[in-house]
Amino acid sequence: MTASVEPVTAAILVIGDEILSGRTKDRNIGYIAEYLTTLGIDVREVRVVPDVEEEIVTAVNALRARYTYLFTTGGIGPTHDDITADSVAKAFGVSIDVDPRARAMLLEYIKAEDLNEARLRMARIPDGAELVPNPVSKAPGFWIGNVIVMAGVPTIMQAMLDQVAPRLRTGVRMLSETILANAREGDVGGPLRIIAEAHPEVTIGSYPFMGEDGRPNTNLVVRSRDPRKLAAALAEVQAMVDTVRRW
Amino acid sequence: MTASVEPVTAAILVIGDEILSGRTKDRNIGYIAEYLTTLGIDVREVRVVPDVEEEIVTAVNALRARYTYLFTTGGIGPTHDDITADSVAKAFGVSIDVDPRARAMLLEYIKAEDLNEARLRMARIPDGAELVPNPVSKAPGFWIGNVIVMAGVPTIMQAMLDQVAPRLRTGVRMLSETILANAREGDVGGPLRIIAEAHPEVTIGSYPFMGEDGRPNTNLVVRSRDPRKLAAALAEVQAMVDTVRRW
Repeated sequence: MTASVEPVTAAILVIGDEILSGRTKDRNIGYIAEYLTTLGIDVREVRVVPDVEEEIVTAVNALRARYTYLFTTGGIGPTHDDITADSVAKAFGVSIDVDPRARAMLLEYIKAEDLNEARLRMARIPDGAELVPNPVSKAPGFWIGNVIVMAGVPTIMQAMLDQVAPRLRTGVRMLSETILANAREGDVGGPLRIIAEAHPEVTIGSYPFMGEDGRPNTNLVVRSRDPRKLAAALAEVQAMVDTVRRW
Repeated sequence: MTASVEPVTAAILVIGDEILSGRTKDRNIGYIAEYLTTLGIDVREVRVVPDVEEEIVTAVNALRARYTYLFTTGGIGPTHDDITADSVAKAFGVSIDVDPRARAMLLEYIKAEDLNEARLRMARIPDGAELVPNPVSKAPGFWIGNVIVMAGVPTIMQAMLDQVAPRLRTGVRMLSETILANAREGDVGGPLRIIAEAHPEVTIGSYPFMGEDGRPNTNLVVRSRDPRKLAAALAEVQAMVDTVRRW
């Protein structure tokens, strides 16, 4: 008997002009996606928006309403273009000011005489938020409602994710098995559709790639939260692959 | 005198469960963003959605209404989980069927006896769309309205982008200069805000990083479409950097 468990879902919101201009290549989406997947949290949507308050507010409100969690990256530094904290406060309709706890964290890293107005911006936290400690450079992220606000620098974001992970509600973990078809995608597509239709609670993905031997090849990924259903579909995919036409 | 030119904008929609699970790390967003930026096309938003028709239809219709162009990647292969073409047809409210031109392209690469039902899916093109040739593996993308539908495999996507680029409406190119601050971000933040406020038509971004010498450093990126405005702001940023407090 399998317990019926409501899935735990998430969205990722990447904030920053530098990603949209291509100047900086995002490395956070894939990391967060893989991390949450191992926790049994399904990432259902990702958005990237510029450093524009209205865009951030709209995206935060759309995504936090729809998923269990929203994780944001970027825009919490000390400069004028770092407007994530203020935008999130606006999305929640709460005030924002320098938080004494966050200020104290900054002072673990920065001398009091260096805590200028720019750096104090990093201690601005929306009213009612909990802090997410930053073991790398102290300036914290925060967690308000179901929204977790993290830095954009990958090492810092990763450390923040480790801080919040133990407190996330996790789901039944998605199990995944990969079968190498040793065949072209177009030759497995027909039989694969029949198997997929016979196993509606299993997700089967097909990912073509060019093999190192120069032959087009295909990875077939079978996913389910139920190990028995996974095994049943996997056996059929394997049997199909064993008999399908080769190159 | 600077001509007032309406900006040319774009969104990118990445379609695929494998990106959201973290199994595949996206390499297309950064490539397309950088490519369009050099053409003077501003990427204003990115979304990643799963292989779910309703999600694709909603995202296509939201993004195509808002930006000059929408570029999609993924979901145009031969298997049951490749539902992008059908979803785009639904978003536009047009019919979709095997397109004789696309079928002929497939036959340049695939023998007639190998053109099975799965592979024929790759010739399904929404009514009224133009084809985007695929020099790598023949199965075409397409262009309907302001939506350009491309493959997810990076080499094929890149080749398709080269095919469509000469026909895109391009904007006045965004000019960009980077100044290495040789200072911590928190020490340039205050004076940088004053410069940014004095130059509202110039965008100034601040990107901290850990230098190879182990010292926190900052890249300041000044951007404008107007070379004189860029030069004026750049001179002030340089003067500020020359006198700001070092580590």
